[in-house]
Amino acid sequence: MGEVRSPPLAASQMRMDADFVAREQPRLLQELVDFLSIPSVSALPAHASDCRRAAEWLRAELTRLGCPVVQLIEGQGHPVVWAEGPQVPDRPTLLVYGHYDVQPPDPIEEWETPPFDPTVRDGRLYARGAADDKGQVFCLLKAYEAVLDGDGRPPLNVHFIFEGEEECGGETIVDLLRAEPERTRADAALVCDMSYYAPGWPAVYTALRGLCYAEISVRTLQRDLHSGAYGGVAPNAIETLVRILAGLKDEDGEILIPKLYKAVVPPGKKELKSWKRLPFDEESYLREEVTARALTGLSDYSVFERVWALPTLEIHGIRGGFTGEGAKTVIPAQATAKVSLRLVPGQRFEKVARQLERAVAALAPKWADVTVTILHGGDPVQVQVDHPAFQVLDEAFESVVGRRTVPARSGGSIPIIPELGLTGAPVMLTGIGLPDDGLHSPNERLDLGQLWTGIQVFGRFLELFAEKGGQGTRVEGEPARMGEAVEA
Amino acid sequence: MGEVRSPPLAASQMRMDADFVAREQPRLLQELVDFLSIPSVSALPAHASDCRRAAEWLRAELTRLGCPVVQLIEGQGHPVVWAEGPQVPDRPTLLVYGHYDVQPPDPIEEWETPPFDPTVRDGRLYARGAADDKGQVFCLLKAYEAVLDGDGRPPLNVHFIFEGEEECGGETIVDLLRAEPERTRADAALVCDMSYYAPGWPAVYTALRGLCYAEISVRTLQRDLHSGAYGGVAPNAIETLVRILAGLKDEDGEILIPKLYKAVVPPGKKELKSWKRLPFDEESYLREEVTARALTGLSDYSVFERVWALPTLEIHGIRGGFTGEGAKTVIPAQATAKVSLRLVPGQRFEKVARQLERAVAALAPKWADVTVTILHGGDPVQVQVDHPAFQVLDEAFESVVGRRTVPARSGGSIPIIPELGLTGAPVMLTGIGLPDDGLHSPNERLDLGQLWTGIQVFGRFLELFAEKGGQGTRVEGEPARMGEAVEA
Repeated sequence: MGEVRSPPLAASQMRMDADFVAREQPRLLQELVDFLSIPSVSALPAHASDCRRAAEWLRAELTRLGCPVVQLIEGQGHPVVWAEGPQVPDRPTLLVYGHYDVQPPDPIEEWETPPFDPTVRDGRLYARGAADDKGQVFCLLKAYEAVLDGDGRPPLNVHFIFEGEEECGGETIVDLLRAEPERTRADAALVCDMSYYAPGWPAVYTALRGLCYAEISVRTLQRDLHSGAYGGVAPNAIETLVRILAGLKDEDGEILIPKLYKAVVPPGKKELKSWKRLPFDEESYLREEVTARALTGLSDYSVFERVWALPTLEIHGIRGGFTGEGAKTVIPAQATAKVSLRLVPGQRFEKVARQLERAVAALAPKWADVTVTILHGGDPVQVQVDHPAFQVLDEAFESVVGRRTVPARSGGSIPIIPELGLTGAPVMLTGIGLPDDGLHSPNERLDLGQLWTGIQVFGRFLELFAEKGGQGTRVEGEPARMGEAVEA
Repeated sequence: MGEVRSPPLAASQMRMDADFVAREQPRLLQELVDFLSIPSVSALPAHASDCRRAAEWLRAELTRLGCPVVQLIEGQGHPVVWAEGPQVPDRPTLLVYGHYDVQPPDPIEEWETPPFDPTVRDGRLYARGAADDKGQVFCLLKAYEAVLDGDGRPPLNVHFIFEGEEECGGETIVDLLRAEPERTRADAALVCDMSYYAPGWPAVYTALRGLCYAEISVRTLQRDLHSGAYGGVAPNAIETLVRILAGLKDEDGEILIPKLYKAVVPPGKKELKSWKRLPFDEESYLREEVTARALTGLSDYSVFERVWALPTLEIHGIRGGFTGEGAKTVIPAQATAKVSLRLVPGQRFEKVARQLERAVAALAPKWADVTVTILHGGDPVQVQVDHPAFQVLDEAFESVVGRRTVPARSGGSIPIIPELGLTGAPVMLTGIGLPDDGLHSPNERLDLGQLWTGIQVFGRFLELFAEKGGQGTRVEGEPARMGEAVEA
């Protein structure tokens, strides 16, 4: 990204030091390496103290940046970090969201360098959390640092909320926002946990899919049996589970849960048209990103529709019987699978959970004990992107990377977004990642060029939003619609 | 079994000390506990040294019993223990087969007491291998000990062959018998690795099913993917495997491998009729043995036909994706299942292996890498039971437990039996287990009453066979037929 030209700013807007990144790079890189070295894996109890260390790292950093209010807010799990910059009267308030926890690093043996020993190769920083989301949290902190004036004062009111349970379905931030909805009241929220649509193509996201995550367990016998003695008459738990799973989706990718598709609101013509304008090379997507021999799923729909606008059902894990080395001739009594549905606008998590339960019950033979345990979930999200705040964001991107954002959707989910939406402010879902950053995979990485331009982009955005964002320019009759999946 | 009356033996037959068991019980139990405490799990590489310890335990015991020849015969895996008792001229030779290896104990958490900490409860000894087959090997050794005279001489020639790879498909004993077929030349072979048909009903087995054990592996991606980003287009390895498995057998239990049933030779009328005379209570079989809510499989056939005379396909284990605690939203790149077919007379292992490979290949989508690895197998076995040796066995059972053997089949497999059959001698498949001993399951056990009467039965058999077995009483024109599954 080194060749991107930053056009000179008009004098009235010049507050950010244009040389900040160039001058401070070595220090910034060392700080980010320190932050990424903390293995803040929220799903693993053994790393609870590391999650707290990451929260403390943020507390220290926000204090150093001059925030008069910095708190660790405790719940059942890992704390929420809350901070408020110095009050700036007559200027708008921006809420910045991010998360400091990371996914488990397994399969650990597939990492070229250790996941918590951040390493630079070919202009990329490899570490768990480099892109999702610690690197992006860091980017926003440094953008904020860059626009502080000589007295350490920012050009606008900035509130920071960083959670530590995004990757594990924890409820600390949800409980906080339900108990104190006024805390997150702001003129806009900036969520920097996403990626560019493609290199050189920054994006804002108009929808996220929701999620319904469940475990399906089958028991057919009180104990495992010898397949020699009882093969032919004893019901096999794995076979029973396999039939249920095969019955939930057909070979062409259509989910067979009755009425599941009924509530789906398809994307509008305008949105479909905008997706057709996005650069997309299916061949390189298949080979380099998906790494498969063919794309599967509902072939009547485009790839964009399949990953952004249609519900999916995936089997994430399955286990039963003997899985060690060699041969054991057991008829297994018990088997379990983890599955999830991604939900799209129109669908509701709670309703889909009931539909899944009923579909599994209908597929279960009467001689088997079959249970569906809903582990967690969230509603899909739709965002209107015609609030003027998005124009400010576009201006910032254009001035630094030379291109405005493109509207995209994400197939993924950020469970807290519907809750943030309760504040009524526009939520800008954007970010500095690239599509091949390897989120949740071995060798997760962040392109350092993206980081350096990202600091400039968001510094520029803070300055522009300070001037324009608080002036009540919100378009009448077009409120931001958050967490309100429209029922068909 | 305490109430079984042992009728007094005629003076000419009295060699076995009738009080041997009553007097020696505490010592015998301690010896068996020592043997069972060795975790000789042949399928797990970590237990290789334990398998050797079990072989050494047998070597020491056979030496103590006065065998002038005791050898550990090495191959690729665990050794075969070979021993010859003192030569007794003009007396017949009996070959005794057993195995000292055991199945893996998992699921370990379902054991009430540890699998290798043998524990007596309610007259049963609980331990992995108690019935399959270490307890039965021990029974034969003690029967042999009981009939030794004051000078430590047995009444006939006994050769012992105990393998350590019965449960893992190892080839050491096969290689040995192919290289040295004369080693197992004998007047009869006694294989004590089976159970009574029911409590009080000793059995001899006229057929064993064969086996074809395979691992089916599927890879659809080069690496696991995030289901949010790629759910809807990326082929899921678990889903692919599930469809293949569901396609190999229908809901009614019919195996869908083309032409699989064509070679099956159904049991004759006489044999079917003999099965109808066996005591059988389907309700208690279902509740107490199978521990299920219903029997499944081909409902046009009787339970006996389904478990003894028809091929079956079972899924023994399956694994793929994320199976830890909680939720991880991964699209798995890879998944594996272990399956096996049980084969019946008429079928051949090698042919069925090719049929399975073709059926899986036909079910595999072209964008997936699907491999079938045949781990091991063996042909089914049929045995003629009209050789006079069987009458001697009947006499022994009748004199100790009051009932002759009933002819039964076994749904299980003992891979070496067809190879033993190459010696041409009658092979007596029998044993002292009970149907609910929990072979291959948690809380495997041996009824101690069965052990004590078993020692008397086989002691009696050794004495009777010493007198009658070597006198050329074999019925002309009715050679024992072993390992010759008749092709249809």
